Amino acid sequence: MPTSVFQHAVLVGKHQAGGVARTLSEIASWLAEAGVEVWVEALTAHHCDLPGHAELALEEAGTRGADGGWVAIVVGGDGTMLGAARRLAPYGVPLVGINSGRLGFITDITEADWRQAIGAMLGGHFEREHRSVLGGQVLRGGRPVFEGIAINDVVVNRSGATGLLELRVDVDGRPMYVQRADGLIVSTPTGSTAYAMSAGGPILHPSLPGLVLVPIAAHTLSNRPIVLPEGVHVEIEVMSHKDVGVNFDMQHFADLLGGDRVSLRISPHRAVFLHPPGWSYFTTLRKKLHWHEVLGEED
Amino acid sequence: MPTSVFQHAVLVGKHQAGGVARTLSEIASWLAEAGVEVWVEALTAHHCDLPGHAELALEEAGTRGADGGWVAIVVGGDGTMLGAARRLAPYGVPLVGINSGRLGFITDITEADWRQAIGAMLGGHFEREHRSVLGGQVLRGGRPVFEGIAINDVVVNRSGATGLLELRVDVDGRPMYVQRADGLIVSTPTGSTAYAMSAGGPILHPSLPGLVLVPIAAHTLSNRPIVLPEGVHVEIEVMSHKDVGVNFDMQHFADLLGGDRVSLRISPHRAVFLHPPGWSYFTTLRKKLHWHEVLGEED
Amino acid sequence: MPTSVFQHAVLVGKHQAGGVARTLSEIASWLAEAGVEVWVEALTAHHCDLPGHAELALEEAGTRGADGGWVAIVVGGDGTMLGAARRLAPYGVPLVGINSGRLGFITDITEADWRQAIGAMLGGHFEREHRSVLGGQVLRGGRPVFEGIAINDVVVNRSGATGLLELRVDVDGRPMYVQRADGLIVSTPTGSTAYAMSAGGPILHPSLPGLVLVPIAAHTLSNRPIVLPEGVHVEIEVMSHKDVGVNFDMQHFADLLGGDRVSLRISPHRAVFLHPPGWSYFTTLRKKLHWHEVLGEED
Amino acid sequence: MPTSVFQHAVLVGKHQAGGVARTLSEIASWLAEAGVEVWVEALTAHHCDLPGHAELALEEAGTRGADGGWVAIVVGGDGTMLGAARRLAPYGVPLVGINSGRLGFITDITEADWRQAIGAMLGGHFEREHRSVLGGQVLRGGRPVFEGIAINDVVVNRSGATGLLELRVDVDGRPMYVQRADGLIVSTPTGSTAYAMSAGGPILHPSLPGLVLVPIAAHTLSNRPIVLPEGVHVEIEVMSHKDVGVNFDMQHFADLLGGDRVSLRISPHRAVFLHPPGWSYFTTLRKKLHWHEVLGEED
Repeated sequence: MPTSVFQHAVLVGKHQAGGVARTLSEIASWLAEAGVEVWVEALTAHHCDLPGHAELALEEAGTRGADGGWVAIVVGGDGTMLGAARRLAPYGVPLVGINSGRLGFITDITEADWRQAIGAMLGGHFEREHRSVLGGQVLRGGRPVFEGIAINDVVVNRSGATGLLELRVDVDGRPMYVQRADGLIVSTPTGSTAYAMSAGGPILHPSLPGLVLVPIAAHTLSNRPIVLPEGVHVEIEVMSHKDVGVNFDMQHFADLLGGDRVSLRISPHRAVFLHPPGWSYFTTLRKKLHWHEVLGEED
Repeated sequence: MPTSVFQHAVLVGKHQAGGVARTLSEIASWLAEAGVEVWVEALTAHHCDLPGHAELALEEAGTRGADGGWVAIVVGGDGTMLGAARRLAPYGVPLVGINSGRLGFITDITEADWRQAIGAMLGGHFEREHRSVLGGQVLRGGRPVFEGIAINDVVVNRSGATGLLELRVDVDGRPMYVQRADGLIVSTPTGSTAYAMSAGGPILHPSLPGLVLVPIAAHTLSNRPIVLPEGVHVEIEVMSHKDVGVNFDMQHFADLLGGDRVSLRISPHRAVFLHPPGWSYFTTLRKKLHWHEVLGEED
Repeated sequence: MPTSVFQHAVLVGKHQAGGVARTLSEIASWLAEAGVEVWVEALTAHHCDLPGHAELALEEAGTRGADGGWVAIVVGGDGTMLGAARRLAPYGVPLVGINSGRLGFITDITEADWRQAIGAMLGGHFEREHRSVLGGQVLRGGRPVFEGIAINDVVVNRSGATGLLELRVDVDGRPMYVQRADGLIVSTPTGSTAYAMSAGGPILHPSLPGLVLVPIAAHTLSNRPIVLPEGVHVEIEVMSHKDVGVNFDMQHFADLLGGDRVSLRISPHRAVFLHPPGWSYFTTLRKKLHWHEVLGEED
Repeated sequence: MPTSVFQHAVLVGKHQAGGVARTLSEIASWLAEAGVEVWVEALTAHHCDLPGHAELALEEAGTRGADGGWVAIVVGGDGTMLGAARRLAPYGVPLVGINSGRLGFITDITEADWRQAIGAMLGGHFEREHRSVLGGQVLRGGRPVFEGIAINDVVVNRSGATGLLELRVDVDGRPMYVQRADGLIVSTPTGSTAYAMSAGGPILHPSLPGLVLVPIAAHTLSNRPIVLPEGVHVEIEVMSHKDVGVNFDMQHFADLLGGDRVSLRISPHRAVFLHPPGWSYFTTLRKKLHWHEVLGEED
């Protein structure tokens, strides 16, 4: 076996799913045989017994791997992948996603295919793809009180049972609109096939340098989703006064008060995903969205 | 002046709006001169001083007016009208809606036009329209723990910042779907131009004997709004386990637990609205929805 | 074998599909053994050789079967079923739909299941369902120049490559709107899951006494689909002047001129569909619309 | 009056609108007094008498003005502006749009304001904005048989009353989908608020380096609009066999045959629009889309 282009691999698994442990264990052995040093992400290690492999926080893997030679292998669903990608994005360590159940939008290698896919990748055969990341702050009285990043989306929404949500949105310091709605989704291309799509948003190709604002149940029917270039500065000011919150990838939450501003920009960092050679984003779309019967493919 | 077809009128005003008091006072004087006995709804009386006219709870007006001769005159917005209609629907006392600001879907007489409109109505010239009402119960362990009625809609939704909402919907005892969404709106024709429309629902003509289920941000794109005949029994079972609630016309709220069932039927009672002669539902639609430039009308 | 509740069956097959002939032949033999007199629809007979069974136009089957004892068995897709239903609706002869390929919305018995399903039906075990039918005329200078009926929909649309389509729609003689769009679909509940759904319309339950107007690519975003009670008279006047047409179930076409009126009403006749016992409309919806993973069903 | 930054202005007017002539005449006199040499676009000159000013084809103005010093002033609606922009885009001559009736998306100066706006522009005070342009070819048997450019959109659609339209779309040589629909709109950001929006597409900010594909009444509900980066090569192959056509900005039309390919790329040229200082795209959006009541603005 020729030398791998990756000397270190850190394994990440979906904690709640017992079955993932076996796959992780097989991958660990296989990589070790291929001469790759295998590390296990700390929380994954806590849930899956992978003897003989050292634990490591993802941020530590990021720091060590910032100059190359490292890869993260994620076994689980899109949520697990999103979590790992958020933590590794600042360091540029690439991720490979293996879905442990149904095909995901970003975990696009099946458990049955991992040997072939990872084998090719170790040999340097892969497609490298960059996904943009949203970074944001909550400003209260002009001072940051919360920070977060998102691979999919940042959502400002009602956090209680009732009440009108009113948001003023400025883009590059210019007023865009006042939105009366259940909420407002600011989504990356990666997030465009997640919550934003449920709310009526378009699909953004991952390589589009843009982001999309999608209102949820807007009062004004002409408040269509709007796609902005990725260099913009989006500021969302909370004009209503109770039960409002913001979340990043539906993982990190903050309560908002009237007058708070959520300030968002695409981050200078990008998450790096590796795909098997010949991978096509459109193939994943077709399968996930049941664009059946296309080109004679099986679904 | 000929004898009025209504011997009693109960006045209802939007409490928060100061300007309404003057219009109510003018209407009261004008009606009294026309030989109509004027009553003032209790909460309205509390906020607007209308000397010489007795207070009355709407339910009391309903009881006294169930055999005819009574009319409720509402000055305010659609919310005020909805509230009064909910309380009077069981008794069949008709309502007239005068909007104190912008045209409403159901408060379709302007403040400038009230004399002409109400004058015609006292003379028996009006269009009588029936609006269906949704009645519902929350069942916990099979026993009712909450009851409500709605003129617009009953909404089961997430009441917290987070969490997947999963609802199983049965229609006449047959499983329809399991809905994964931010929420589910069950709307009357009257409510179809309110929240249900924001969530992507169709317009239902007020005389359609049907109701519509509109999911909010459904995970499955093919979960389109579905219109059911009004005789059906709709049951919504909560399959997720936290931060779920139900509201009736966004006025009456109840928290829901996993396993709770919201049981809904169109009520045997209908709200009765009176409109000036020549009134057309479509004219209101065109104005409210900015179907401009139609038929040469001003907007 | 007990006596069948049907003494006569007329077989209808999709002409273009060769494979249908064998199924038709098997059904014919099976029915004959069960003591049912088997007839073959004329055009079907022309394409599929079914020796020993007399040919019959569907209208003739309708006339003979108007008093009962007849059933039409259709093998093909929804299009074949629509065509047969249009022709039999005036007579009330019931239809059974067997899909020769993929499940249809109205051909809901699989080829694998026909023996069981039809066996039960001959024994009187079925669910009888009525589907409303749209009847229409084209009026030119007030005189009818074309007539048609539709089980799914009547569509007025642009019939050329270019030009603005402008339609004035009156409902019960009252102006509703002037629609600027690619076209306007007037759909029955049966048609609501066909073209109307592609254009953004809601699902109407088959037993809803209503119809829906769905514009295609309306210029005005607030021109939402509108559901009207089934008793209404809908008139569509062509205000633009070239390349406009109307079709009934995409089968019968007429060119329209400026000033022409398309006058539509729900017909007093209804198509009658028979389904196997236990059939649920929602089960078909879930399968056709990929509402997967619902209630643990296979799809 | 200081020297104008533009030495030459070519005037373009909406031919059909008589009232435009007076405004054009006033602008011509005013510019001449300001020392700007005034030319009149040939077709405009044919319809509007502007004595003392030479006629000029727009392409000629483009050639002469490619190095600067020229501006085109368009009086009319968005259609007139689109036509002029298509012809000037290859040369980079900037355009100013004055709407002669209702506010347009790209004719954003009112007739009442033209003196102030153009005065500022002559003094060098304006915002310069670039709009992308779609260029396309129809390939038959691999050979180009038609060429066109579009500021708004290229639309492949059904050109007859009937028939299923089936299109195979490849992006950068990779199969994206087979679309079954009434048609497919490929739109620039400028076109995103035109026909694409009627068909359910998102708004694309004019500075977004992307384009959007929006199906019209797609058979598959999950065939959402998709936004692609502007560098892509989009190829649309006609798989159905009759009554299919393509148009560029709804102005230039070609019939298509089965097997024809429409090959599209964003052009290296961009249309250049000038706006008054302080202009905001969002202000135009809010007014055109009736995002009323925003920020206290009049509408």
